[in-house]
Amino acid sequence: MSRWQPNARGRLEQAALDLYSERGFEQTTAAQIAERAGLTERTFFRHYADKREVLFGGAHLLQELFVNTLADIPESAAPIDAMASTLETVADAVFLERHEHSRQRQAVIAASAELRERELIKLASLSAALAATLRRRGVDDQAASLTAEAGIAVFKVGFEGWVGGNGEHTLADFLRESLEELKAVAAGAGRRKN
Amino acid sequence: MSRWQPNARGRLEQAALDLYSERGFEQTTAAQIAERAGLTERTFFRHYADKREVLFGGAHLLQELFVNTLADIPESAAPIDAMASTLETVADAVFLERHEHSRQRQAVIAASAELRERELIKLASLSAALAATLRRRGVDDQAASLTAEAGIAVFKVGFEGWVGGNGEHTLADFLRESLEELKAVAAGAGRRKN
Repeated sequence: MSRWQPNARGRLEQAALDLYSERGFEQTTAAQIAERAGLTERTFFRHYADKREVLFGGAHLLQELFVNTLADIPESAAPIDAMASTLETVADAVFLERHEHSRQRQAVIAASAELRERELIKLASLSAALAATLRRRGVDDQAASLTAEAGIAVFKVGFEGWVGGNGEHTLADFLRESLEELKAVAAGAGRRKN
Repeated sequence: MSRWQPNARGRLEQAALDLYSERGFEQTTAAQIAERAGLTERTFFRHYADKREVLFGGAHLLQELFVNTLADIPESAAPIDAMASTLETVADAVFLERHEHSRQRQAVIAASAELRERELIKLASLSAALAATLRRRGVDDQAASLTAEAGIAVFKVGFEGWVGGNGEHTLADFLRESLEELKAVAAGAGRRKN
């Protein structure tokens, strides 16, 4: 390992990321991840149910942060504005110093259908939680689902742009641009090349 | 089986759907599906790589239909209008007589995390194919991705409403309503209850 890791979960995640980058997800075992992290296989399975989950250990906390941030926004805000503010707050709270880590993680996920599936179900869970939060704020069922799905779409496209870039601009910048583009698209515009 | 099935794939899909409904996805084997369809396990694996794929045998054709429909729309149409027209055309071409089948299939998928993951990756593949088609039509990269993601969001929410309803209105009706709601949400509205 290239740097000190404060805890078993973090060490296992970084070891998994490094091994998946070096040899691929399919070719790596939980035992190898534990060994690289200086821990036992038993410790691995105490923390993670399987080889996929080790890359998504933070998903639950991230979802909680999204939901709490959205719930704290005044209900007078339009749903899409509440969503925009939530995306930016989370981006600044979690991803400011994580460009290189996020880039490496995204490359590993993109290379494995199994990991892409797992990531998609985490995003679907996040979307459902955000929609439920909007409903609790008095937003109509369908509008809540569509605002949440729009937020996830903006996040996916903005995140992809951010990890594909050089890290000069923040994720929040990319998310703002992505949301503006979604609004333009929905209004019947949509930039054309040339 | 309650009705005549013209081919092995269709028979296997219906048998799988019935067994997954009766005993659950986890509790059903490929051999049992083949038996119910009056076929051999070997035939099952000649047609489908695994127990999940049997529910997604039509995904490739559906994606092809989406892409061809979108490609045929005049390039003068705004991306969101091209997407709206594509959704309605596909809905009428594929789902007019499929309410009960779609309802049963969706209930089975909703009950299994493994099947939900597989469905999400099929939708992600569809989204990527639609975005690529929009790019070939001269739409800017980011606008293409967001139009495709918006189309998938509209499809998911509209489809959910349709299978949850009594089948009186068509899927195309639900998709139109869902798209109007997305446009309203993006414009800063979003219906509120009460």
